[in-house]
Amino acid sequence: MHRTYSLRSSRAPSATQLSSPAPPPASTKGKLFGKSSLVGSIRRTTAGSFGPELSRKLATLIKAEKNLERSFELVARERKTVAKQLSLWGEENDDDVSDVTDKLGVLIYEIGELEDQFIDKYDQYRITLKSIRNIEASVQPSRDRKLKITDEIAHLKYKDPQSPKLAVLEQELVRAEAESLVAEAQLSNITREKLKAAFNYQFESLIELSEKLASIAGYGKALLALLDDSAVTPGETRPAYDGYETSKQIIIDAENALASWTLDSAAVKPALSIRRTADDVYHHGAEENIDGTGASAEEGWANEHAPAENTDQVVV
Amino acid sequence: MHRTYSLRSSRAPSATQLSSPAPPPASTKGKLFGKSSLVGSIRRTTAGSFGPELSRKLATLIKAEKNLERSFELVARERKTVAKQLSLWGEENDDDVSDVTDKLGVLIYEIGELEDQFIDKYDQYRITLKSIRNIEASVQPSRDRKLKITDEIAHLKYKDPQSPKLAVLEQELVRAEAESLVAEAQLSNITREKLKAAFNYQFESLIELSEKLASIAGYGKALLALLDDSAVTPGETRPAYDGYETSKQIIIDAENALASWTLDSAAVKPALSIRRTADDVYHHGAEENIDGTGASAEEGWANEHAPAENTDQVVV
Repeated sequence: MHRTYSLRSSRAPSATQLSSPAPPPASTKGKLFGKSSLVGSIRRTTAGSFGPELSRKLATLIKAEKNLERSFELVARERKTVAKQLSLWGEENDDDVSDVTDKLGVLIYEIGELEDQFIDKYDQYRITLKSIRNIEASVQPSRDRKLKITDEIAHLKYKDPQSPKLAVLEQELVRAEAESLVAEAQLSNITREKLKAAFNYQFESLIELSEKLASIAGYGKALLALLDDSAVTPGETRPAYDGYETSKQIIIDAENALASWTLDSAAVKPALSIRRTADDVYHHGAEENIDGTGASAEEGWANEHAPAENTDQVVV
Repeated sequence: MHRTYSLRSSRAPSATQLSSPAPPPASTKGKLFGKSSLVGSIRRTTAGSFGPELSRKLATLIKAEKNLERSFELVARERKTVAKQLSLWGEENDDDVSDVTDKLGVLIYEIGELEDQFIDKYDQYRITLKSIRNIEASVQPSRDRKLKITDEIAHLKYKDPQSPKLAVLEQELVRAEAESLVAEAQLSNITREKLKAAFNYQFESLIELSEKLASIAGYGKALLALLDDSAVTPGETRPAYDGYETSKQIIIDAENALASWTLDSAAVKPALSIRRTADDVYHHGAEENIDGTGASAEEGWANEHAPAENTDQVVV
């Protein structure tokens, strides 16, 4: 089986696709409406056409992220609609169905709220990307200026090698090169700092959302156990429902679990077979860590929990 | 602090809202476009206007679920766009940024694929709800018929108490009542069976998606550690990047983790303070389980893993 590990070459089916049988595609897929947003498509295709060339690809990414956020907002809103409608439908049913659907509605509404909060955090990620785009855009003029002076010098050397302007231009070039060195160092530093901060923030927000949703789903399954699904014969009446306290307690338990969740208490952990740190990758110095203790990789993670705050710090 | 545990009364702020400070709302929110889908809104408002009255509320819910799926499809599609654009932007950067963004793109693309698979599963949940809607719709005529005959008898008793038609109608009523008893038992049984199956399937799909996304986010954070974010001074060059093997191994580890995930290996578990089963709630018999062993609640969960398959089984 050939696999590719890059998005730049064409992609082989993922391990997940190969390993688990998929249900048939959702019957809602591939219909005319909702297929793709016209506004989103305009936004995406025009985003890369303006501004300094250096920052165009990132500008396109930032616009695509905005499209993603908008769609996610729709999901969150419709999640809440679904929650209310489920509760409304259940109300006319027997006591057990009525109580369980109402409580399921509470949990699903909470999913909508968490999705809403996630979008706000995702937007912080997107805003952090913007600071990379801004430094990219500001570095372009200094590159252009250096190139322009170099061209002028070459032109003058060919046309009028004795021109006194030549010395002036060469002094200008030295200054432009100094400025450019600083700009490129800023670009290099800020790109890495912000990229790391942005994606750490996105992934931590995603971990929070995912673990909370998995938790809610667990409590939802506990609610379902309260449904009396033993079959009744015609004319037989079901025993009276007495699960109100239990169902309420399940909701309280769910709320407590969500409120007490922290990133440190996250249950899902990646299993890394190589535990090397950035230090190892760059052969910075003494502390080789390939012996498999893995301690410094873990430490590295713990230190990156803070989101992108120090936005204005420029190291030159 | 007053809390409500029902969607039917107005809702107090959730514990999560109260406990964790939220970031400012996403700057994409509340704009003109993408605010709400016209088609979706028409679908939702017209869905409840047709068909037998008994099934209208559930029909509205099923249409709302379709809206949710459509929006989620947009999210999945835009996730993949973002993944490609991230990889494309990174390509023009230094080796470490280029490699890490490409691999991040692979992970984010995988998120899009998983979201796609989740939608297909969510559609199975929605289709299972349809079988409840169908039985609701089919029970309505038998209720109507019983009511109509009862009315006719009352009318005839007032107008012509000696009519020989009265005996015929009363025989008809007995038959209609028998049919209705069967229909109501079918409704009661199928509603519970399908409701339980549908939501178990939804929640299990959600647990799968959530845990896999949390896992991917963890591997994403591991990739970020490969970025050389030490600050360089102007003119200084960064040490050569040597993380290709490590980053590839992280992707392989992530793929393996996703491929080997099963519901039984789920890491996030609900913490239930009351462990009562449906048996306890309905006082069915001997086996009281409030002593806190909790064993039967766990068993109950394990038995509900199978999705909605036996759709045609009607117990009467």
